[in-house]
Amino acid sequence: MSDLPHAVRVTEEGPREGFQIEKGPIATARKIALIDALSQTGLDHIQVVSFVNPKAVPGMADADDVVRGIAPRKGVAYTALWLNKKGFERALQFSDRLANSGTIQLSASEKFSLRNQNRSAAQQLAEQHAIVESYKSAGVPVERGSIMAAFGCNFEGDIPVARVVALVQQILDVAQEHAVTLKYITLADTMAWAAPLAVKRVVGTLRERWPDLDIALHLHDTRGMAIANAYAGLEMGVRRFDSSVAGLGGCPFAGHQGAAGNVCTEDLVFLCDELGIATGIELDALIECAQLAEDIVGHPLPGSVMKGGTLARFRG
Amino acid sequence: MSDLPHAVRVTEEGPREGFQIEKGPIATARKIALIDALSQTGLDHIQVVSFVNPKAVPGMADADDVVRGIAPRKGVAYTALWLNKKGFERALQFSDRLANSGTIQLSASEKFSLRNQNRSAAQQLAEQHAIVESYKSAGVPVERGSIMAAFGCNFEGDIPVARVVALVQQILDVAQEHAVTLKYITLADTMAWAAPLAVKRVVGTLRERWPDLDIALHLHDTRGMAIANAYAGLEMGVRRFDSSVAGLGGCPFAGHQGAAGNVCTEDLVFLCDELGIATGIELDALIECAQLAEDIVGHPLPGSVMKGGTLARFRG
Repeated sequence: MSDLPHAVRVTEEGPREGFQIEKGPIATARKIALIDALSQTGLDHIQVVSFVNPKAVPGMADADDVVRGIAPRKGVAYTALWLNKKGFERALQFSDRLANSGTIQLSASEKFSLRNQNRSAAQQLAEQHAIVESYKSAGVPVERGSIMAAFGCNFEGDIPVARVVALVQQILDVAQEHAVTLKYITLADTMAWAAPLAVKRVVGTLRERWPDLDIALHLHDTRGMAIANAYAGLEMGVRRFDSSVAGLGGCPFAGHQGAAGNVCTEDLVFLCDELGIATGIELDALIECAQLAEDIVGHPLPGSVMKGGTLARFRG
Repeated sequence: MSDLPHAVRVTEEGPREGFQIEKGPIATARKIALIDALSQTGLDHIQVVSFVNPKAVPGMADADDVVRGIAPRKGVAYTALWLNKKGFERALQFSDRLANSGTIQLSASEKFSLRNQNRSAAQQLAEQHAIVESYKSAGVPVERGSIMAAFGCNFEGDIPVARVVALVQQILDVAQEHAVTLKYITLADTMAWAAPLAVKRVVGTLRERWPDLDIALHLHDTRGMAIANAYAGLEMGVRRFDSSVAGLGGCPFAGHQGAAGNVCTEDLVFLCDELGIATGIELDALIECAQLAEDIVGHPLPGSVMKGGTLARFRG
C-alpha cells in the first residue's frame, strides 16, 4: 500500500528534546535564538520547553525565561511539555504565549509505567479522567491522544498491535466521556523499537478500524530507523510527525547508550520535498537552524542534510 | 507494491570506502584486523582495497600488504576495486586471494564522465568492449554491470528513468556481444540523489522490463536517505546491497561537504532482521566490528545500531 499524503504537519521538538538532555549549561539567550530562528522557517508548531523539576532536568531550569524571551511569531504555535499538575500550572501562567493543549496519554507498556510513574495500566487510565477534567476546568482544550512505547519497550519487549488498538479505544472512550474531540493520536516510538513493517502494520490496523482518525508519529532514531519509519508512515498516509532539528535530543557521540533524538527535521523535510509532499517549511532556512543548533550545543549533531546539503542548488 | 525478499546478499565495502578517505595514516595491521573481524560475522563478500595511484589515494598505498595480510576465510569472497589497466594488473597478482571479477560500468551522467574520466558517454561505452575482452583474456569472469549516478548527478541534475533503462540495455548488449552472463546490475547512487520514490520508480521500471534481472543498490547516505532508500529497494524486491560497516566512507564530522559513506551495514542488517529478511550475518559480531572501525579511525562514525544497541538483548 502506498498512500502518500499531499501535505504533512511537522511539530518541531528540538528545543525541548535537545536542551533537556544536553549536559552543558546553555545560555538562555541561545535557546531563545534557536527557537526564534525556527519560527522563521515556516514551522507552525514548536515545542519550546518542558516544565519539569529543575533538579531532575537542569537544562530546563530556565524554562520560564525561555518562554518569556521568545519573540512570538503569528501563525506559530509554541507549546510546552509537562508531566504533572505543578508543571501544568507553570504552563498556564504563559497562556498568552503558549498554545497550551491537553493530551490523554497512555503507555503501551505497563512495565514502563510502573517503572517510570509507579502506576499500573489501570491506574494510568483512571487518572486520565481527572486530568481531562483539570484541563477542561482550566479552559485548556484537549486535542491529542498519545500512546507511549507503541512499538516496543526495553522492559516489556514487542507490543502487540491488538494492545495499541485497545489503547486507542480507551483514549477515544475517555475523550467521549468528557465530551472532548481529539484532533489526532500520536504513536510514540519512545524506545526506538519500530521498524518500517511494524509502522505499516500498526498504522494500517488503526486506519482500517478508524478511517478518519488522524495519526501522528513520534520516532526516535536510536537504531537509525527513524527516516525509514517516517517513510513507511507516509506510505500509510500519516500526515503528522514530531521531529527534532539537527536530530537534537540524544547524545550519540557522548558514548552512552541513551536514546537518540527524534527523526531529524531537515532530513524529514528533505524526504517530503523529494516525495512531492508539502510541508510549508523552507529547507535552507531549516538547515541554518540545524547549524545554529550544532554551534549552540558545541558538538556534532546527527542530522545529514545539514552536512550533505540540499539538491536545489544543483537543480538550479 | 511490497515485495520484500526472503534473503539479501550484502557486499561489505567499508574497508575500501573507509580507508581510502580517512586522513590518518592507519596501520596496515589494523586494516587487516578489521577485515578479518568482518570475515567472522557471516558476511560472504568484503571489498578490501582499491588498487589506485597511492599519490592520489595515500590511504590505499598499502593495498598489496593488506591483501597479503588477511587471513582468508572459506566462503568469503574478498574483492578489490580498480579504475584502470594498471590497477587491474595489480589485482591479478592476487588471484589466489582475491575473487577478481569484472564489471561493465557506465555512468548515467555524461557530465560526470567527462569531468572525472574525460570521456563522453559514447567513448565510455566503446571502451567497455575492450575492457570485457581484457577480462576474458585474463580469465576473469565478468559478472556485474554497474551504472554510476543512476539517480542524479551534481553536474547534470536528476537522471530520467528512461536513461537508466537505456544504459541497462547497453550493458546487456555488451555482455551479449562478448558472450558473458552478468549476475546482476548495480545502481549506484554515487552522489546521494536518491529518495525512496525514485528508487521504487527506477527499480520498478527495470523489473517490469527485465523481470529476471537481479538489481543491486549502492546507496550513499550524504542526505540521510540511505536506510529509507534501502527499505524502498527491499519493498521492490531488491536482494543485493553494498554497505559499509559503521557507515565508514565519508567524513561528515570533518566539516567538509563531501559524500557520506554507504548505507551502514549493521543498520541495514538490523532493518533486515526486523523485516524477517535473512542476511546470514550475525548482528552482534557486526556491531563489534563497527566499534573496532571507530577505534581504528579515531573519530565517531555515523552508524546508529552500534550506539543504540540491538533489541535482541531485551527480547531475551
